[in-house]
Amino acid sequence: MDYRAETWAALQRVRERSPLVHSITNYVSMDVTANALLAVGAAPAMVHAAEEVEEFMGIAHALVVNIGTLSPPWVDAMRLAVDRAVALGKPWVLDPVGAGATRYRTETARDLAERRPTVIRGNASEILAVAGAAQATRGVDSAHASSDAVESARALARQLGCVVAVTGAVDYVTDGARTLSVANGDPMMTRVTALGCSATALVGAFLAVHDDTVFAATAALAVLAVAGEMAARESPGPGTFRLKLLDALYTMDAQALEAVRIAQQVSFSAKT
Amino acid sequence: MDYRAETWAALQRVRERSPLVHSITNYVSMDVTANALLAVGAAPAMVHAAEEVEEFMGIAHALVVNIGTLSPPWVDAMRLAVDRAVALGKPWVLDPVGAGATRYRTETARDLAERRPTVIRGNASEILAVAGAAQATRGVDSAHASSDAVESARALARQLGCVVAVTGAVDYVTDGARTLSVANGDPMMTRVTALGCSATALVGAFLAVHDDTVFAATAALAVLAVAGEMAARESPGPGTFRLKLLDALYTMDAQALEAVRIAQQVSFSAKT
Amino acid sequence: MDYRAETWAALQRVRERSPLVHSITNYVSMDVTANALLAVGAAPAMVHAAEEVEEFMGIAHALVVNIGTLSPPWVDAMRLAVDRAVALGKPWVLDPVGAGATRYRTETARDLAERRPTVIRGNASEILAVAGAAQATRGVDSAHASSDAVESARALARQLGCVVAVTGAVDYVTDGARTLSVANGDPMMTRVTALGCSATALVGAFLAVHDDTVFAATAALAVLAVAGEMAARESPGPGTFRLKLLDALYTMDAQALEAVRIAQQVSFSAKT
Repeated sequence: MDYRAETWAALQRVRERSPLVHSITNYVSMDVTANALLAVGAAPAMVHAAEEVEEFMGIAHALVVNIGTLSPPWVDAMRLAVDRAVALGKPWVLDPVGAGATRYRTETARDLAERRPTVIRGNASEILAVAGAAQATRGVDSAHASSDAVESARALARQLGCVVAVTGAVDYVTDGARTLSVANGDPMMTRVTALGCSATALVGAFLAVHDDTVFAATAALAVLAVAGEMAARESPGPGTFRLKLLDALYTMDAQALEAVRIAQQVSFSAKT
Repeated sequence: MDYRAETWAALQRVRERSPLVHSITNYVSMDVTANALLAVGAAPAMVHAAEEVEEFMGIAHALVVNIGTLSPPWVDAMRLAVDRAVALGKPWVLDPVGAGATRYRTETARDLAERRPTVIRGNASEILAVAGAAQATRGVDSAHASSDAVESARALARQLGCVVAVTGAVDYVTDGARTLSVANGDPMMTRVTALGCSATALVGAFLAVHDDTVFAATAALAVLAVAGEMAARESPGPGTFRLKLLDALYTMDAQALEAVRIAQQVSFSAKT
Repeated sequence: MDYRAETWAALQRVRERSPLVHSITNYVSMDVTANALLAVGAAPAMVHAAEEVEEFMGIAHALVVNIGTLSPPWVDAMRLAVDRAVALGKPWVLDPVGAGATRYRTETARDLAERRPTVIRGNASEILAVAGAAQATRGVDSAHASSDAVESARALARQLGCVVAVTGAVDYVTDGARTLSVANGDPMMTRVTALGCSATALVGAFLAVHDDTVFAATAALAVLAVAGEMAARESPGPGTFRLKLLDALYTMDAQALEAVRIAQQVSFSAKT
């Protein structure tokens, strides 16, 4: 597969089809997530009431569930929405924000992870927590490098029958057998809130237009990471960076995507 | 009426009086809505608890109710707030976000619409849904051009005794008899989340300082649309656009408002 | 004390230690507050469910409680979190947004104020309301100059055994005996939503790295105010201003902090 060409093709499909991404996400991320989806050409809809999430899944093309600011009524609605997404055969993505930081958060993340997500996207600490291999997470930041969690991600993907994406300096996306990596991005991305949440939302948008789940998730992460590189070149600080990143998602073309560094990973360990 | 001069006069009054706009709005829009109100010279207050919305209406100059991320406790508070606004004779504006997308949303929008709003502001699909003439809405985007909904808007305005604003490439504001249009704006406005919500909030601010409801709503939409044109000229993408739009609301002067294209509409149909 | 050198030292410590600031704050402020904390080098975490706030305090370095969009479930969680912070000996900061505007808001603010906050940060109207000396507050804006509230702030600080910060054109920080002032900032700061909330969050971050509470709160306010001055010089309006302010928090160095104008205040009145 020509990863760059296929990433560009996937981005074009998002722009043409403008998939409606039903997002049940945290309060902090709503603004930037909605704007990232719009910038990339998708259509966001933040809908969280138990009274309507199931019906809304009928018109959405993908669902994104993010537990960043979870509370019981939201978790109830998340369960209703994901079960309906599965029943309708629509892709859904789990972002287990802060899994490992508190028992409530870890248990909620695991409960949702067992409801057949298409993709789970988290940082290393979060993925380790969902996989049951975690030490304490420090809030929403990862205390581990993404490479530390690749083997756990593979095992988790095989156990749940889903795709797991571990993001960090390098991103890894795996279904337990095949693993792709993305070596793009910029450290400034950690200085703007909710870009991880936005990554998850873009994964939802790309899943809605591409059947190869591992690749679709990888392409979404690559597009965001390349936008981050483009933005960093023009930004003295994180305020400017955030808006340049949205501009870059909007203006991104095939030439910009020449920067994409997706690679197939060989297994890190033959033992697992 | 000299629409440009009167729009400028209305904007100056907003800046002088800085009306306090009580907003019960959706989570996605809170940040940009508050910033748009501040940029134009008004004072935002997001207050949504049933325990205080009625008392707060006593000091607010206008109320804005937006159902974008509705849930039962919020809807209860919306009802309390709008009933108090009506009792106090203060203007209130309804933004029926996503009406038509789910039964819960449509029914809530209609219930609120029957509580004597001063203005209802929505896109064509939302206004058609409130008017009972809708097909399915696709999330918060309109599946119709604004002109498709003008006759329904007129009928709805007459039925409810309120003003209805349908926004889109051209905006229409009607009380059922008189209709004004605004032919300003830029397509980039659809690539930033919650600018429709911000439009509704600005309508609230202008209603607080101007007694001609049709004109006040029209002027608010015109100011935002001209700010959009100003921002678009300087913006490579939606990230930059959003901040330039806020700058433009703040710097807008009489000369910039020469771009305003408000017109009186003749009836589209003599049959209604 | 060399206030400029000590402010720079405190900022450097925030950047080195990256304190985890547990924030239970209002919906409007979450995005900019999280981004301000990240820009200054701290780590934000918005966690509000009663199910997890106490456990989360175990890993957080400071707590910020802001009642801007309060409702009963949030207030319950605020109480749990602050009581745990006190039990653990971790600093916590109260932002009594809009105290005085409604009975519910004033009573909640006073209840929280009696739970041993390390610092209370508000505008003059809010501090007067918490001190029981208020007339009606106009939403979240102050109807008083900060200097009007200094004596009430001193009395409140002595009564509660905490530090009180009154912000405005000049900021005052007092423990009832010693009072520092900050004569920095720019009027444009009032045209961007939630910068007061962001000030409170920065106070939390600085308390986590500095034992002199009066000075730590003062340094946090000074850093934000100087960032505001830096941003204002480059901004035609509040859209640009907000992002330049975040950039300035990130790029701020010892030279930029030469602009700091912190002073010890003599008592305004010998009578109190």
